[in-house]
Amino acid sequence: MNPDQQRMEKIVSLCKRRGFIFQSSEIYGGLNGCWDYGPLGVELKRNVKDYWWRVMVRERDDVVGMDGAILMSRAVWRASGHEETFTDPMVDCRTCKARLRADQIGEKKQCPSCGGKDLTEPRSFNLMFKTFVGATEDDDSVTYLRPETAQSIFVQFKNVLDTARKKLPFGIAQIGKAFRNEINPRNYIFRSREFEQMELEYFCRAEEGMKWLEYWKEQRLKFYENIGIGRDKLHVLTVPDADRAFYSKGTYDIEYDFPFGRQELEGVAYRTDYDLKQHQEASGKPLDYFDEETKQRFIPHVVEPSAGVDRTVLALLCNAYDEETVTDEKGKSETRIVMRFHPRMAPVKVGVFPLLKNNDQLVSKAREIVALLRPQMNVFYDETGAIGRRYRRQDEAGTPFGITVDFETLGEKDPALRDTVTLRERDSMRQERVKIGDLLQLLLARVS
Amino acid sequence: MNPDQQRMEKIVSLCKRRGFIFQSSEIYGGLNGCWDYGPLGVELKRNVKDYWWRVMVRERDDVVGMDGAILMSRAVWRASGHEETFTDPMVDCRTCKARLRADQIGEKKQCPSCGGKDLTEPRSFNLMFKTFVGATEDDDSVTYLRPETAQSIFVQFKNVLDTARKKLPFGIAQIGKAFRNEINPRNYIFRSREFEQMELEYFCRAEEGMKWLEYWKEQRLKFYENIGIGRDKLHVLTVPDADRAFYSKGTYDIEYDFPFGRQELEGVAYRTDYDLKQHQEASGKPLDYFDEETKQRFIPHVVEPSAGVDRTVLALLCNAYDEETVTDEKGKSETRIVMRFHPRMAPVKVGVFPLLKNNDQLVSKAREIVALLRPQMNVFYDETGAIGRRYRRQDEAGTPFGITVDFETLGEKDPALRDTVTLRERDSMRQERVKIGDLLQLLLARVS
Repeated sequence: MNPDQQRMEKIVSLCKRRGFIFQSSEIYGGLNGCWDYGPLGVELKRNVKDYWWRVMVRERDDVVGMDGAILMSRAVWRASGHEETFTDPMVDCRTCKARLRADQIGEKKQCPSCGGKDLTEPRSFNLMFKTFVGATEDDDSVTYLRPETAQSIFVQFKNVLDTARKKLPFGIAQIGKAFRNEINPRNYIFRSREFEQMELEYFCRAEEGMKWLEYWKEQRLKFYENIGIGRDKLHVLTVPDADRAFYSKGTYDIEYDFPFGRQELEGVAYRTDYDLKQHQEASGKPLDYFDEETKQRFIPHVVEPSAGVDRTVLALLCNAYDEETVTDEKGKSETRIVMRFHPRMAPVKVGVFPLLKNNDQLVSKAREIVALLRPQMNVFYDETGAIGRRYRRQDEAGTPFGITVDFETLGEKDPALRDTVTLRERDSMRQERVKIGDLLQLLLARVS
Repeated sequence: MNPDQQRMEKIVSLCKRRGFIFQSSEIYGGLNGCWDYGPLGVELKRNVKDYWWRVMVRERDDVVGMDGAILMSRAVWRASGHEETFTDPMVDCRTCKARLRADQIGEKKQCPSCGGKDLTEPRSFNLMFKTFVGATEDDDSVTYLRPETAQSIFVQFKNVLDTARKKLPFGIAQIGKAFRNEINPRNYIFRSREFEQMELEYFCRAEEGMKWLEYWKEQRLKFYENIGIGRDKLHVLTVPDADRAFYSKGTYDIEYDFPFGRQELEGVAYRTDYDLKQHQEASGKPLDYFDEETKQRFIPHVVEPSAGVDRTVLALLCNAYDEETVTDEKGKSETRIVMRFHPRMAPVKVGVFPLLKNNDQLVSKAREIVALLRPQMNVFYDETGAIGRRYRRQDEAGTPFGITVDFETLGEKDPALRDTVTLRERDSMRQERVKIGDLLQLLLARVS
């Protein structure tokens, strides 16, 4: 195992041990390519989604949100081209009946399972999950779990335009699940069969498409910086002409150096008017825009920043994981594992610890502090174990601040210290004495 | 059409006209039983879910969250009993081949489509959507879209227990999509094929089960009150023994008077230890709890408050819709349609209106106010049309407050009124003069 693989193993292990991520249906042997988020993972994921929604929708005049169903009419996937072309090349082994992805059979053209060479010609395997809506299981009742959220937006373009009364340029944003029946799910939650997307379709005039492509690439880079993934960790790949969808006039991939390699976090694609045109033609319903100033009707162009929620969570986990050697109170060296999440993203913002759990005054003071902070941020109360161990547990959870209520707080030694607590900062492990009355403002400024 | 049906029609019409809810895949004729949330609807739904998460998870020491995958191993649905018994009785018409729900064929025992009487015996139709995971479509690759979120929690009980270090009683909460292939989706978003649940599984000792059932019923009633559905609009049905699941020792339905009848908003069920026992037996993995005090191992009992997101949204819409006759400035009577949402739930908290859009000073002052408020709440800026029409548009959207920037704000008439605005309250239509500097505090206190 190389150091990158070792690092990845440690991250996966911490995620299970601390309740970030579990294998779906684990007690039944798991379901390949599906994952469940545990108590810390769900908060981390919520923070990613909430921050995206805040900066992409709520703080902008030119973007509105929507939330479309996962199940859509089959006609959507015919018009979008997914039914015909959203495929991977597959090969069957006639000897052992294994089904293989054509690019996995290697140069020797033999089955990796049985070594047999009697393989079928490659044929297309559609990556959409099929299901049946209604009481019969026939061709008329077939539909698919959406393989991307974007098409929900395109087919509701006219409804949103008519009700939200926006003028170009404007965007429609959505966060939601999508599904792809990957032949080979891999790299933990990076390429899974069930995943969540955060997509914006930003509609504009044709002549401004390239400008908005640049704008959104920059905005999205800022987003990752604002959640703690520095610009130096990100790479912008200008997707070459040959690799772009045929209708795209320009695409950037924003990539991150995962332990398993440099991989795409987000694509920012200038999709032209392809999608709306396809749906207008297939549905026979007008999906055009009326420009009140020029009195022209036209189909807008669109720039799409499309981010993966799970990929962003994974990047945050990989980015945050750190080990360092520290010396404890007794002079003993030990390894400290610490998740250095940006405070804005951290699942828990602050741990509150009474020094002793058997002392009513300490406990009741700590409870007061919890009650003070909880309406404004996620607080974790912990009264068990030595204080050093409690700090370490929160280091692993990535909690940026710890508050300890001790005998000083009760004013037993020095009346001037009454109603002060120890505030410990996760990354530096520095401790300072802070008045309880100052805590809320001080913490709010650092975590929001 | 009776008055209740008329009222429902009006609500549905407003929801489409104002962008709360659209039919899924509408441009392709729709997909029966699936709905998309538009710009206002998605914010309303987010407010419901965020408030639930806040009071059920973040503000409690005894509850943690999780977020499980929609796709789970088929073994989960075998163990839970869903594969065998989650069915509706179906009948085929041999004459016209229609498939019917057995309870729809009426007393005459004839086909409602063709009138034929040659019907098959009723047989069971499973309501779970089937799909295939992996490259082959055979029995081994079958699984289902989850028909409820609860089972995700039960199968991860041990992982959450081990990582979150909670002691009984404690709960695991989840918000997520579920799917049921209803033969007859009906009542708008009330009974749809794709829907969202907010479920808490609250684990406790057997002897405390009935106590926690009462506790959670009361908590959940308070929740609805806190989002604007008064106690007088809610009804608690004690589900009779014969109608309860065989393993349940007690179930309350919290019902609301929808225009189409009194229907269940939420079920609060004492499910005993049935679910965990089923999964322990089927998986062979221990799902018990070790009590450090008594040194006993046992399978906890569980009380489940299970709410529907879409049903709650629909109740809020029905509860909010109001029409009243008002007299305008010119003495003309007109009907005002107003959505009287609780400010906490309202999709938009405040509208900001410069009196004239052609006056730079008014517009720039209004923009300043938007910038002031937007980091803290959802703001809508509108500069087009007469001010009365802008108010009416926000009345229909349910926006509780409107701020108008006029010439008084610029201090043109009375210097003492400089930097004050008109604050209009949606329900009473009362207007008061408020200093811009006081706006944020004043509004925050009323909308959070």
